Amino acid sequence: MENESRPKVYVTRKLHFNAAHRMFNPSWSDEKNAEVFGLCNNPNWHGHNYELEVTVVGSPEPETGYVFDLSRLKRIIETRVINKVDHKNLNLDVEFMRGIIPSSENFVVAIWNELKEAVAPATLHLIRLYETPRNFVEYRGEASA
Amino acid sequence: MENESRPKVYVTRKLHFNAAHRMFNPSWSDEKNAEVFGLCNNPNWHGHNYELEVTVVGSPEPETGYVFDLSRLKRIIETRVINKVDHKNLNLDVEFMRGIIPSSENFVVAIWNELKEAVAPATLHLIRLYETPRNFVEYRGEASA
Amino acid sequence: MENESRPKVYVTRKLHFNAAHRMFNPSWSDEKNAEVFGLCNNPNWHGHNYELEVTVVGSPEPETGYVFDLSRLKRIIETRVINKVDHKNLNLDVEFMRGIIPSSENFVVAIWNELKEAVAPATLHLIRLYETPRNFVEYRGEASA
Amino acid sequence: MENESRPKVYVTRKLHFNAAHRMFNPSWSDEKNAEVFGLCNNPNWHGHNYELEVTVVGSPEPETGYVFDLSRLKRIIETRVINKVDHKNLNLDVEFMRGIIPSSENFVVAIWNELKEAVAPATLHLIRLYETPRNFVEYRGEASA
Amino acid sequence: MENESRPKVYVTRKLHFNAAHRMFNPSWSDEKNAEVFGLCNNPNWHGHNYELEVTVVGSPEPETGYVFDLSRLKRIIETRVINKVDHKNLNLDVEFMRGIIPSSENFVVAIWNELKEAVAPATLHLIRLYETPRNFVEYRGEASA
Amino acid sequence: MENESRPKVYVTRKLHFNAAHRMFNPSWSDEKNAEVFGLCNNPNWHGHNYELEVTVVGSPEPETGYVFDLSRLKRIIETRVINKVDHKNLNLDVEFMRGIIPSSENFVVAIWNELKEAVAPATLHLIRLYETPRNFVEYRGEASA
Repeated sequence: MENESRPKVYVTRKLHFNAAHRMFNPSWSDEKNAEVFGLCNNPNWHGHNYELEVTVVGSPEPETGYVFDLSRLKRIIETRVINKVDHKNLNLDVEFMRGIIPSSENFVVAIWNELKEAVAPATLHLIRLYETPRNFVEYRGEASA
Repeated sequence: MENESRPKVYVTRKLHFNAAHRMFNPSWSDEKNAEVFGLCNNPNWHGHNYELEVTVVGSPEPETGYVFDLSRLKRIIETRVINKVDHKNLNLDVEFMRGIIPSSENFVVAIWNELKEAVAPATLHLIRLYETPRNFVEYRGEASA
Repeated sequence: MENESRPKVYVTRKLHFNAAHRMFNPSWSDEKNAEVFGLCNNPNWHGHNYELEVTVVGSPEPETGYVFDLSRLKRIIETRVINKVDHKNLNLDVEFMRGIIPSSENFVVAIWNELKEAVAPATLHLIRLYETPRNFVEYRGEASA
Repeated sequence: MENESRPKVYVTRKLHFNAAHRMFNPSWSDEKNAEVFGLCNNPNWHGHNYELEVTVVGSPEPETGYVFDLSRLKRIIETRVINKVDHKNLNLDVEFMRGIIPSSENFVVAIWNELKEAVAPATLHLIRLYETPRNFVEYRGEASA
Repeated sequence: MENESRPKVYVTRKLHFNAAHRMFNPSWSDEKNAEVFGLCNNPNWHGHNYELEVTVVGSPEPETGYVFDLSRLKRIIETRVINKVDHKNLNLDVEFMRGIIPSSENFVVAIWNELKEAVAPATLHLIRLYETPRNFVEYRGEASA
Repeated sequence: MENESRPKVYVTRKLHFNAAHRMFNPSWSDEKNAEVFGLCNNPNWHGHNYELEVTVVGSPEPETGYVFDLSRLKRIIETRVINKVDHKNLNLDVEFMRGIIPSSENFVVAIWNELKEAVAPATLHLIRLYETPRNFVEYRGEASA
């Protein structure tokens, strides 16, 4: 390690939750919602097993070898995200999703906002959210040009 | 193959769907439902990505080497199960679950009943249903003693 | 469900733990241990992330639709197995493995013995233990002829 | 273990290979082959990453705790199966598939025949062959009634 | 979302296909081909189950919450790639691979070229191609210095 | 490919090993070690099945279509890393970890240092190390500001 006095290491913890949701734009007619969102617009909801990966970045502490204690990272993610969304309805039950169309894209940005202050002195680097094993979204806190 | 003129081979096709549901016994009070079912009783629903494995058994046809054409098996499962449950609410939207508490156990038995006649001349052997990557149920058409 | 008044359903819960171990027969010389067990005999130990699948069988309770409440099954497995083996040394730290060579085969039988009384009124059906993603063992409480 | 002097334990090793093949019945016209086998009949072949699981059953040897040394099991499977099929064409290159339509069903029975004598004193119990992550076949040496 | 008026979100869809191929440089002798490419040079072909991940990047549309409708993304990938390669021979059957040695590296670049114009107004960000569960390649449209 | 004369492609090989370790800072008291590292400080060790992904980057050679021959990459990783750590104790048996607290973060940096010179003329891009299916670390050779 002598030749890498301050290596930058990315550390990821994966957690699981499930939730119901429905794609719905309240400013549209039911017909337009059904046409645009198809099956995802079902008024009686549908749901997913989500897999959530949270990546922080920093240098390992010399005394512990840890960038961030993963037990502590797990507790932070549980308190700030999992406990608010697990076995919940994303349209109705989740304060931090109020007024937001619960697409995976909007959801991953909202999760970022719940976590970004909480991982200091490490830096939040990436949130990856699997809606199904075949679909996932990623957010790194970047803004479009 | 000479020494196994009629080998018995099990053939499995795996499919995916997602749905909302809620654990709820209508003959109980809300309090008892909440106490027994916990998070799974959320009145606003929750949901899952289900993985469904359907296994049929038979001997390979000499002319094709197939026990059952897997494209045809896929279409049967889609028509009889997936199209009725995908992006649906198991308590409200699914005819073959009407009046049934949508536990994975009851759900797998109901799926068996939808499929058992449809796979002749092969025999339906096993339905395995993953509710999450950590929980699954299996039914083989057996009755308890 | 009318036509299956007492269906027999298998319910599985998967849990994860990690442990160190070493293949070692104390009645053999070091040379024979090294020759028979190879890398697995390393005196400084090696270790695995184990995946444990516990399957119980029974009929769904009419009032809940459950064969066995999976939260309760998880707690039983944690209390009787996971808490005794997770982040432990199977040769040194685990009371129920005392005097037993910690092969996967012996380990899965010992886990069965820890759990078989605890899942009544359901019946313990199968323990499957992955030592690596490429190796696993299974025990159903059967004896050889 | 005292109360299970001769437990019967199932031990599985998973291996990987890839191969080309083509579904084709030489006694049929090209038109009939195309109609029955569809995409799988492509005259220029297609291929798969196969996953092969081989399960043997027996009682753990008291001196080793092993039913069957998994390194030895791996070598047997490599010698008798993997080396003959990996990066090969199942229709053209594989002696033990000569004259057999290379469906997964026929292939799994042929693999069983290659292995059944070689795992004594354990007993070959199950061959499971994944053709894709969504399709698999199983053979236990059983014959149809 | 107030504080992230134009978040940049990456959206990925994973699809599956299988194909035969053979590593072969037509300007080399058979001996040199065999020496360099080994098993992958088998004149009778071999094959793989490929997993293809396509990632696009953009900002969620305020009206839908979508960067790109995933059903539409799936159809584009099927039309432009999957239907041309699934159950095909990459050396013989695929127009967009004509004259190209079908290594995973060359294949992933060719897939990029098939898709890059088709995902506007989102931007194609990454193609990841698994040849086996243990090998994958990635292309982001970058050129070497 | 004409329009991408020198595409930059990332190529990854995944390998597996298992090892024992223990989180321990020798300059601390046993009490402080137990308090900070918890279960991971077990004096009798614990262990993991590690998954190691090594990514190199370069342009495909025109004559082979390869950025780097994956068989050769596999042999390099086996010689320089896997053979030194598989079935070993990271605190006691591994020369390149001597004096380093064997956190995943420190371990991934040390693996980078073992490999970075060995993959020329390609460039080492990323080491990803899974300690469990739910935890992984990544290193790209970057230093913190």
